[in-house]
Amino acid sequence: MDDLRRQHLQTPGRDDLRSRLHARLLAGLPAEALLTDPDVTASYAHDMASFCTAGTPAAVVLPRTVEQVQHVLRTATELRVPVVPQGARTGLSGGANATDDCIVLSLVKMDRILEVDPVDRIAVVEPGVVNAVLSRAVAERGLYYPPDPSSWETCTIGGNIGTASGGLCCVKYGVTAEYVLGLDVVLADGRLLTTGRRTAKGVAGYDLTRLFVGSEGSLGVVVKAVLALKPQPPAQLALAAEFPSAAAACAAVCAIMERGHTPSLLELMDRTTVQAVNRMARMGLPDTTEALLLCAFDTPDPAADLAAVGELCAAAGATEVVPAADAAESELLLQARRLSLTALETIKSATMIDDVCVPRTRLAEMLDGTAAVAEKYGLTIGVCAHAGDGNTHPVVCFDHTDEDESRRARESFDEIMALGLALGGTITGEHGVGVLKKEWLARELGPVGLELQRGIKATFDPLGLLNPGKLF
Amino acid sequence: MDDLRRQHLQTPGRDDLRSRLHARLLAGLPAEALLTDPDVTASYAHDMASFCTAGTPAAVVLPRTVEQVQHVLRTATELRVPVVPQGARTGLSGGANATDDCIVLSLVKMDRILEVDPVDRIAVVEPGVVNAVLSRAVAERGLYYPPDPSSWETCTIGGNIGTASGGLCCVKYGVTAEYVLGLDVVLADGRLLTTGRRTAKGVAGYDLTRLFVGSEGSLGVVVKAVLALKPQPPAQLALAAEFPSAAAACAAVCAIMERGHTPSLLELMDRTTVQAVNRMARMGLPDTTEALLLCAFDTPDPAADLAAVGELCAAAGATEVVPAADAAESELLLQARRLSLTALETIKSATMIDDVCVPRTRLAEMLDGTAAVAEKYGLTIGVCAHAGDGNTHPVVCFDHTDEDESRRARESFDEIMALGLALGGTITGEHGVGVLKKEWLARELGPVGLELQRGIKATFDPLGLLNPGKLF
Repeated sequence: MDDLRRQHLQTPGRDDLRSRLHARLLAGLPAEALLTDPDVTASYAHDMASFCTAGTPAAVVLPRTVEQVQHVLRTATELRVPVVPQGARTGLSGGANATDDCIVLSLVKMDRILEVDPVDRIAVVEPGVVNAVLSRAVAERGLYYPPDPSSWETCTIGGNIGTASGGLCCVKYGVTAEYVLGLDVVLADGRLLTTGRRTAKGVAGYDLTRLFVGSEGSLGVVVKAVLALKPQPPAQLALAAEFPSAAAACAAVCAIMERGHTPSLLELMDRTTVQAVNRMARMGLPDTTEALLLCAFDTPDPAADLAAVGELCAAAGATEVVPAADAAESELLLQARRLSLTALETIKSATMIDDVCVPRTRLAEMLDGTAAVAEKYGLTIGVCAHAGDGNTHPVVCFDHTDEDESRRARESFDEIMALGLALGGTITGEHGVGVLKKEWLARELGPVGLELQRGIKATFDPLGLLNPGKLF
Repeated sequence: MDDLRRQHLQTPGRDDLRSRLHARLLAGLPAEALLTDPDVTASYAHDMASFCTAGTPAAVVLPRTVEQVQHVLRTATELRVPVVPQGARTGLSGGANATDDCIVLSLVKMDRILEVDPVDRIAVVEPGVVNAVLSRAVAERGLYYPPDPSSWETCTIGGNIGTASGGLCCVKYGVTAEYVLGLDVVLADGRLLTTGRRTAKGVAGYDLTRLFVGSEGSLGVVVKAVLALKPQPPAQLALAAEFPSAAAACAAVCAIMERGHTPSLLELMDRTTVQAVNRMARMGLPDTTEALLLCAFDTPDPAADLAAVGELCAAAGATEVVPAADAAESELLLQARRLSLTALETIKSATMIDDVCVPRTRLAEMLDGTAAVAEKYGLTIGVCAHAGDGNTHPVVCFDHTDEDESRRARESFDEIMALGLALGGTITGEHGVGVLKKEWLARELGPVGLELQRGIKATFDPLGLLNPGKLF
């Protein structure tokens, strides 16, 4: 199969096409913006997802201006070459993976923060700005950009918009979608579209801005974004509560939300996750707990809020409730949570990270069901979860050189998604569909929804050149 | 002209078509769901906007079930009859106005609250539920549905979704769009589409839910909505501040937002508005003030927040700052604001209410510019504004029997929208486009945006039967 593909790549027709493509691209790009060395371009072929095929790009382009992006898209349309837009490739669904003979359009060099306005509470940025860079820049002005995916130190705002990223903040502050007010987008044919607004409100026509958020580069290439900012909240204060079962921890989550609390963070780590984090970082977390709940508040009186939540945890069966003494101790607890995925990745040679989100009333069933799936397939599946959102991250750990274990990993992954749908949830709370969850998207949307989504795709990209093979 | 039209209506062809339509509709509807008496159907022909043409409906249908809505849409598709979906007709842009020979599809009888869940913090409702009815029902469970358009005692959730309504709450809580998680929608051909989710997060495919919000019934008919709820905040406490000029009041607004405050309400009433409210309701507002700013907090310590805001107002030039003593006094102040539109309507025989939203840094220019427009055209234009959002409501008062004054009213209205766009704003912050702002939508979107919006419309409604002639 590989030999056949290589042969195909070496046919003169393909080489001619590549040369022509490179020449046409260089007509509107500086030489350093075009990468064609196959050893180099191969490193742009895929994001961080397992089990996702990735093709061989014909070229990688790193534009610095809107005009250069427009040139790339015009060239792609002229030559009918697919384009795969990319940020930092920290995605977990293969949404940024190359297709064969495509142009990989990496936006990482368009990384300027163009404007931060504390009165209008907006930032205007290019797509390659790293999430943490923006967060720190606005913090210096007393402002707060909430979306904080685990990869926030490396992932880009453009990538966050493409996948509608979430993070730990969402239980109080919502996902990326809620912070995107307006966009400049280069369409498949190279035309520039401006959507949305700089204002706090606006309802002029269909909400094209929101349509682009989470569209995984399949409708256009975001080249500028107007983002909403919040005032910086007080430092958050956290507590940790140990539970004898995942179900008991979930009961506490439900009680906290039912009583009207608004925590700034409400996270769950199961026993496997706690132990993995301890092994990796000697955090001194309670090694024997079945479920560890972390809750934080950034309210004016977080200690009082934590005391109330501590009582609800105790009533739900917590065996121990430990409030952090101060912001530094709180930060340590949150670091433990942030290390979860990395720690779980050390268990076996490979992982698949799921992203199912269920109504929080069904969270206990989701966690117990996931444990049953792990047992059925004889696998280790550690779970951390944005519990306050009902958004779970079951991490299937497996040896990728073991064919049978790999097969079981994939099957268990699918079974977890089926469980999520059966519980009234969605297959993806914040990671997106990409290649990994394509067939599951069709199941979640149903035929009518799928047909309309395809109709929208055809309206924006009639030649099907933008990130083909993703989503559906 | 009227004679010609009547003649046309009485041609046998049209009568035949109507009879056939009525018969086909009755095949799937109970008799009481169909209104055909022209005297009755005429009362469904328009919403509350001035200067918007309205046609003569062929029938009004008041369905009670999803199946009945599907039957209506199937019939409409079969017979190629346009359908105008309607709520309580409190809209201000003519978006619910009938077109000639259409079916008016009034959703007001589908008014059940199907579910309120305090753990998942959602309500599931039919489209005809009145905003205030929902707000009170969820308040009984300790929950809060923020969107509060002025018409909240009569307007329906379906109408709110259609126009993406705002209200006084938006400066802290955002608009209707932010509370719609999922929808059931009957498409133009009668098929049922389910979009979105019941979960806190979800990014599976393009955001069709958000596409329907603000689409003014032009893409499908919403028959069920999953709405997000918040925990009920503490009662808000308000202050009123008098300013010697609109610009000074706007400077205070900017200072309040720049300092990171999060008021639950930040409203402005100009002198004309204050005087009109006093005349109507003897509220004892300061009759000579140039601009009255109302600010409220629903935080744990609203008095402290109000004290800080009071200082900012004084620094910006407020001549008097009067904090309310308690919740009851606060409520009185808010009532004064809520009466503004009604009070301004008493000045002349007719009004046109504009809805331009600008970045809050440009609010002073917007208000001064509006005053200049009023002077230029020799008209009274009272302004109240959701100042914290930069969302102004210039109310052009005119005598509709005076042809010249009516012309000047329309011209001034247009000039105000031009000013809003020039200041980086949008033509509509929360009222929608309807018939009233059609040509202005095209200007705001530009040709590329307009083409894509039309493409989306064609994807959902290829025959163009849903609310034709609205938006674009």
